[in-house]
Amino acid sequence: MIRHLDAIRAAVGDAGADALWIHPALDFRYLTGLAPIALERPAALVILAAGGERMLAPQMLAPELDGIASAGVAAWSDGDGPEAAIGRVLDGVGRCLIEPDLPSGTAFALRAARPGLELELDPGILAALRERKAPDELEPLRAASREADAAMAWVAGLELDGRSERELALELQAWFLRRGVEPYSGYVIASGANGALPHHETGDAPVDATAPLLTDFGCVVAGYHSDTTRVHLPEAVAEAAEAYEIVRAAHDAAVAGLEPGLPCEEADRLAREVIAQAGYGDAFVHRLGHGVGLDIHEAPYLRPGNPQPLQAGHVFSVEPGIYVPGRFGVRYENLVHLSEAGPELLNAP
Amino acid sequence: MIRHLDAIRAAVGDAGADALWIHPALDFRYLTGLAPIALERPAALVILAAGGERMLAPQMLAPELDGIASAGVAAWSDGDGPEAAIGRVLDGVGRCLIEPDLPSGTAFALRAARPGLELELDPGILAALRERKAPDELEPLRAASREADAAMAWVAGLELDGRSERELALELQAWFLRRGVEPYSGYVIASGANGALPHHETGDAPVDATAPLLTDFGCVVAGYHSDTTRVHLPEAVAEAAEAYEIVRAAHDAAVAGLEPGLPCEEADRLAREVIAQAGYGDAFVHRLGHGVGLDIHEAPYLRPGNPQPLQAGHVFSVEPGIYVPGRFGVRYENLVHLSEAGPELLNAP
Repeated sequence: MIRHLDAIRAAVGDAGADALWIHPALDFRYLTGLAPIALERPAALVILAAGGERMLAPQMLAPELDGIASAGVAAWSDGDGPEAAIGRVLDGVGRCLIEPDLPSGTAFALRAARPGLELELDPGILAALRERKAPDELEPLRAASREADAAMAWVAGLELDGRSERELALELQAWFLRRGVEPYSGYVIASGANGALPHHETGDAPVDATAPLLTDFGCVVAGYHSDTTRVHLPEAVAEAAEAYEIVRAAHDAAVAGLEPGLPCEEADRLAREVIAQAGYGDAFVHRLGHGVGLDIHEAPYLRPGNPQPLQAGHVFSVEPGIYVPGRFGVRYENLVHLSEAGPELLNAP
Repeated sequence: MIRHLDAIRAAVGDAGADALWIHPALDFRYLTGLAPIALERPAALVILAAGGERMLAPQMLAPELDGIASAGVAAWSDGDGPEAAIGRVLDGVGRCLIEPDLPSGTAFALRAARPGLELELDPGILAALRERKAPDELEPLRAASREADAAMAWVAGLELDGRSERELALELQAWFLRRGVEPYSGYVIASGANGALPHHETGDAPVDATAPLLTDFGCVVAGYHSDTTRVHLPEAVAEAAEAYEIVRAAHDAAVAGLEPGLPCEEADRLAREVIAQAGYGDAFVHRLGHGVGLDIHEAPYLRPGNPQPLQAGHVFSVEPGIYVPGRFGVRYENLVHLSEAGPELLNAP
């Protein structure tokens, strides 16, 4: 059972290609429901424009990947290597679409196995499907954001003295695991001036209980991510508190304007104007937001210069920020599900 | 401070290339000590054969990536996009080496920004450096394996009734976090017949306390991984217990033969022969092992057909297995550091 199979097959043909190569990553999980641990071993679901599908699999994964593709599994062993099996699943394919996240080493292996093979990037067939969330995807997205909200409330109640940023990140991961949900790596825990780096690398700096603490994290429910940011403000940080009010107002202005058809760049502009009018225009150094789903960052991207219209079914972050180098940074981030009825906030404000 | 800079620059020239493009992943961390959260935003350290280095960075990461490359940072904003900045860091470059794990979308973006640019895979410059571990890498590798051993002892003492495979995986992750070390995702927890799939996808199946339980997991210390497998055998599973003894004997035979200069395929053969002589030859469906370091799987690969000689400084897994579909699977895995003096087991047997 491959999700959207007929639509994908037609789109591959419309793109003038013979096949689409889907390696075991998030598109593969989206289409098949499976997340095989292939790592560096080449594997793929190959969808043919002319009909039928083929599966390439290392021998040790072949039993798990059997029964998905109509043509069965072309298996290869660690001893023989994948080249001949790659050639078999590309038999008759002259022009093949690949995903933007396909490792370049695999792309070179395809060309080596089929000299003359033309590779082109998927023009957006899979991104267009994945960015509009179905009801069975919205449920875990909502649940993941609820869990992140509960974790944020837990952080807000902590006595912060003595911990390092990294220790707090590990405690947060353990907190999610105790609830039976999966954390992910890459939490941004930034104390004081570290918050001025939007993607500060969480480190051994102690958390300063007298300074703003920026926390940007989430969890995973059935593969779907949450991603939220709050700044915890102690007393007597008037400037950061004022900036945090500005980014919250910018967030609210953008959310108020969200509707299907609104261009991504316009959503960005709604927030950016609030920040610029408050005199912090140069301090908002990134886009307003990004899609969220099986991946933490995916389409649509709410950035200046992106005319793509927002659609019902999109789930994305709204996360304006103000960063003052050497002093502080504030960011406020919620996930939003856009429906025909308007925006649904997945986080508690 | 870029590790091995002069050696890399010379090797790029020897490969007939003008530059090496290193994106923010494990090679980048290895060379710079930094792990910036770039995700889908193009960023790179570009090492020029003719001398000098350039850094491409999204604006929001530019402060963290300043001061590394001699030519400073070419920053780009979410609004403008990366194309012009990519063009600048590739100025004068006709032939560029890329890493096997570079996303194909980025490779296409390089060609779009510099029409006529020739891209070639790194012929192994970085893999050859990373596979020989320095003393400052061996320390965290040893520590990570010690933590995995302690976790394995904890699992061995658990009452297993009632848990699902997935719940046990989450408990293990939380166990590591309580010790202040990072777990990773992708643990293989396989009860009974699920163990016959070497990379079984850990799921909601209950752990059967009367059947063999295969556990394959590890943790991360300062970026460096452990990776170990043990089978927990209840009474009255004579066939699996016998097979487990065979893979332990195969493991011991391979380890006894390890020395610098031994071809990878010979190490594999030492273990494979023991299993074949016991009548299970077809049931050992994967290679003997893989290198471990910043990545869970990296060079060298101990597989049939790989003549690469093992070297002092290599750290790799030795993990023979026997898989009987529908019945059980057993695998025994330790990490080994090979030095001039011989093999050092990083795990407790």
